Amino acid sequence: MNCAMYELCAADGRSFSPFCWRARMALAHKGIVPELRKVRFSDIAGIGHEATTVPVLLTDQAVVRDSWDIALHLDEQLPDEPPLFEDSGARRHGRFLHHWVTTQLHAPIFRAIAADIWERLDPADQPYFRSTREKRLGGVTLESTRDSQMAAIATLRAALAPLRGALREQRFIAGEAPAYGDYIVFGALQWARVISPTTMLEPDDVVQQWFERCLDLHGGVGRTEPAAR
Amino acid sequence: MNCAMYELCAADGRSFSPFCWRARMALAHKGIVPELRKVRFSDIAGIGHEATTVPVLLTDQAVVRDSWDIALHLDEQLPDEPPLFEDSGARRHGRFLHHWVTTQLHAPIFRAIAADIWERLDPADQPYFRSTREKRLGGVTLESTRDSQMAAIATLRAALAPLRGALREQRFIAGEAPAYGDYIVFGALQWARVISPTTMLEPDDVVQQWFERCLDLHGGVGRTEPAAR
Repeated sequence: MNCAMYELCAADGRSFSPFCWRARMALAHKGIVPELRKVRFSDIAGIGHEATTVPVLLTDQAVVRDSWDIALHLDEQLPDEPPLFEDSGARRHGRFLHHWVTTQLHAPIFRAIAADIWERLDPADQPYFRSTREKRLGGVTLESTRDSQMAAIATLRAALAPLRGALREQRFIAGEAPAYGDYIVFGALQWARVISPTTMLEPDDVVQQWFERCLDLHGGVGRTEPAAR
Repeated sequence: MNCAMYELCAADGRSFSPFCWRARMALAHKGIVPELRKVRFSDIAGIGHEATTVPVLLTDQAVVRDSWDIALHLDEQLPDEPPLFEDSGARRHGRFLHHWVTTQLHAPIFRAIAADIWERLDPADQPYFRSTREKRLGGVTLESTRDSQMAAIATLRAALAPLRGALREQRFIAGEAPAYGDYIVFGALQWARVISPTTMLEPDDVVQQWFERCLDLHGGVGRTEPAAR
């Protein structure tokens, strides 16, 4: 499958969006290396194709605008490659994981890395990011989140308890082999790894050990983006 | 299938254990009405069959000692009845839900209802319950949890966010029809309903609306136990 993917980048070109990483891992799972079209927040309006967010996948047949829809599209178009969703139960599990990650993990990670994101954005993106994200934070400055960074990380670690339970019973979230459920959670931790020098998890945490295994998958595509310093 | 199930009861005989309710709903899903053998905490050691917890299911073929294993056993023995797990993805989803419920929901529910449980237990169970549960609470008295009951309920409501996301997209956790994933979460809310007069969720909460639908399932087996007053 020939395809191009728009993904969000920081000032130095590094890809950090959790949703774009879900899509990158889904493509890698299917053996696809997309043409990457890196955009800043301020470029998204100019992508066309009715895009208001990234990732956006362009193939010969379709334009797919959301990471979840990209996963479904890939399973539909490439049924002979390893499935992203093994069956309908795996699809429902993935959807629950999506809601769990976006409501329980993204919020504490964001509070832990908000100031780091701002520092690494292209200057053209910084005013937009500050105004929208300070509103989301309830009116405090991005910089003030540094004071509560350790509390945010503690909240994240506590929220990961159910995943620890699952990973004590199996190697990957989807079972003995990884699939889309893994990439949903991977995106959240990769977001932090790529944009913030702060350690989120202890090395002996089973979630960190699983994350390292995910970084090694598909030729180590996750490691092609270096950790932030 | 002829079977008997040991389940935990309060002083007036009401069944309140979240794990026993998982098993009761799983049996009802398969069309089975078990012979119920009600036990107090202090009776469990006398059940035999190496039981240290309830539920315990006794059938002609087997003794099954854990609610999760009971669900697997029922699917294995009764493949022609509606499945508790539609496929292997549903089984993994159920297992994640188990870890999510036990780590993220049971703790705030317990803090909200601990004093109510004690009041409704048989006097023979009260000393055991107080000593083990006050240790679990970090050394505070059961009665002192009443002071933080509203905070515990707020924690529960926040923790339910991923379930709200799922239930805005489908009628039951398992899809358009209920299955074991539903019963795992149902058990937690039924525990609170049966043993505590305090309202956990607002009536317009999609989780409460789903819970009411679950109470109606299988001839309203969940409603056979009246709400606590």
